Amino acid sequence: MEIKIVKTTTPKEKPAANALGFGKYFTDHMFVMDYSVEKGWHDARIIPYGPFEFEPSCMVFHYGQSIFEGLKAYKGADGGVLLYRPYENMKRMNRSNDRLCIPQIDEDFAVDAIRQLVLLDKDWIPEGEGTSLYIRPFVFGTDNALGVHPSHTYKFIVILSPVGSYYAGGLSPVKIWVESEYVRAVRGGIGAAKTAGNYAASLKAQEVAEKKGYSQVLWLDGVEQKYVEEVGAMNIFFKIGGEVVTPVLNGSILGGITRDSVIEVLRGSGYKVTERKISIDEVHEAYKNGKLEEVFGTGTAAVISPVGELCYKGEKMVINNNEIGEVSQMLYDTITGMQKGAIEDKYNFTYKI
Amino acid sequence: MEIKIVKTTTPKEKPAANALGFGKYFTDHMFVMDYSVEKGWHDARIIPYGPFEFEPSCMVFHYGQSIFEGLKAYKGADGGVLLYRPYENMKRMNRSNDRLCIPQIDEDFAVDAIRQLVLLDKDWIPEGEGTSLYIRPFVFGTDNALGVHPSHTYKFIVILSPVGSYYAGGLSPVKIWVESEYVRAVRGGIGAAKTAGNYAASLKAQEVAEKKGYSQVLWLDGVEQKYVEEVGAMNIFFKIGGEVVTPVLNGSILGGITRDSVIEVLRGSGYKVTERKISIDEVHEAYKNGKLEEVFGTGTAAVISPVGELCYKGEKMVINNNEIGEVSQMLYDTITGMQKGAIEDKYNFTYKI
Repeated sequence: MEIKIVKTTTPKEKPAANALGFGKYFTDHMFVMDYSVEKGWHDARIIPYGPFEFEPSCMVFHYGQSIFEGLKAYKGADGGVLLYRPYENMKRMNRSNDRLCIPQIDEDFAVDAIRQLVLLDKDWIPEGEGTSLYIRPFVFGTDNALGVHPSHTYKFIVILSPVGSYYAGGLSPVKIWVESEYVRAVRGGIGAAKTAGNYAASLKAQEVAEKKGYSQVLWLDGVEQKYVEEVGAMNIFFKIGGEVVTPVLNGSILGGITRDSVIEVLRGSGYKVTERKISIDEVHEAYKNGKLEEVFGTGTAAVISPVGELCYKGEKMVINNNEIGEVSQMLYDTITGMQKGAIEDKYNFTYKI
Repeated sequence: MEIKIVKTTTPKEKPAANALGFGKYFTDHMFVMDYSVEKGWHDARIIPYGPFEFEPSCMVFHYGQSIFEGLKAYKGADGGVLLYRPYENMKRMNRSNDRLCIPQIDEDFAVDAIRQLVLLDKDWIPEGEGTSLYIRPFVFGTDNALGVHPSHTYKFIVILSPVGSYYAGGLSPVKIWVESEYVRAVRGGIGAAKTAGNYAASLKAQEVAEKKGYSQVLWLDGVEQKYVEEVGAMNIFFKIGGEVVTPVLNGSILGGITRDSVIEVLRGSGYKVTERKISIDEVHEAYKNGKLEEVFGTGTAAVISPVGELCYKGEKMVINNNEIGEVSQMLYDTITGMQKGAIEDKYNFTYKI
């Protein structure tokens, strides 16, 4: 399928590098493609970024049949443009699509659409420390009808946002609240899909945690409320007595692409990494015995996020003196170095466009 | 707050009574109100039904911060217009708003907005058997920004749809698939809120069940996958050995207003009704012992939906010879009779506008 391109005649002013924040500004163009039962995916186009008209009966407002992805583009040291593992994002998008009864999208075609869009708006890729061009592909049902069933029509859209660090503080340890009341997801549910409802479900606990001075929530499993799952916008890793441990993907945890990269980089650097069930009690026990050496989150938005404090049922665990750990720093330097083409990528994670 | 009214200059043709279906047609007007942190809820207006412009970065497409309600208006025997328990819907809407971090809405004001809208479009209320005017209030976050946190701006919209029966067959027994793999909700989650994510989560199991010839899915609890919860679009009741039993509201079940009405009407009619935990094994045991006399669902869309067959792990339970049970018929006649003003409403459920 050919992608029709209509360029903007009124390019926007680009924001200052220090004003970027996360997901506040959008570039001059977007990719759009429509789906109908009769035509399949059709009318692929890159057009000026702008609003769409939606009827108030449009399904997405009512039943949330919607998935998204997030990945980043970087300007390389040689001026070339690098994407980070875009095929992994498109594979995960199709797994989410399947769980939400949304039609599959050709992964090669989707990566090519992203490639063309990013190249058209490549002057929007910021170059400062910690900055990048965030790419947000998303799909949602657009039937204008009530009644709970999968939509017959969809939109696949890709928008681009120049971003700074996800956390205002950059790479500095965050405080995490271990949530023992609210639950994000349970096996058999939609936790492993990158779908709107998981994020809506997380807002209340996040709000409560923020009021207590914590920047994110660590979710426990939905069945026993005992095993560590993820941090909403990140996966989580623990370094306990020299070994790195992360919760095994059990069907209610989102399989992060940064999580996967971190496991590969750690193993490639000689660390032992184990994916298994980890109870919050085990974490607490390790803390009491002085064996909880590092905790960090991993995700596209923040890449690596050192955890300086965990609070579980009122008990505070201060980790590594609230300082950035050695493993966290190594992973951040290695992964962001590869992402920007500054250091050799022996894992084939980067994709030059 | 005053509601500004702008009437349509191009009224639409009304659909034929036998073509209504559910949620396919919308009336000439809608109610809209906006929220911002600075102004609170403001700019309440009734305007011609039509599309809105939304940026692709609008939060609702990505994070599903969205809730809805559903209630019905009927034309009474004397030509007056009746709503059914609208204050209960607005209370539940605010409980959903709270769970989803959406600002509260004045319940009296919201009922009055619905009243004014329905009266303006009262010629759209259909009068045939099983028909009504379905009212869909809904609220969603409208910030144009990525990043997972509650929106700072919202839209509250009410649209109206003349509807026939939810099930094409009218009041006739449905076949229900007892879901033992997928899970809708778990305690600590969002199951008790009427929010988009719960419906998105239900689509896959529904699709699988439909392929096997079942019209709906009966969900089991998320913790043990053992206790009966609800039927996605309905609550569920069992008549076992003369007693009517329904799952107790445990935090992961939607508290249906028809469910509540049914409990009151049954008690008012001399039946014993118990709200408690019910395992699917208990239901199956009762079936084997010939004590499972009736099963029915309750919800705004279908009112009462007799269940003719339950299928659990391949075993089919045919209930009451796949015929409409006596209690189901009595409840349907009583509740729809009150809704249309045809029989005396000793429960004060109806609200004449």
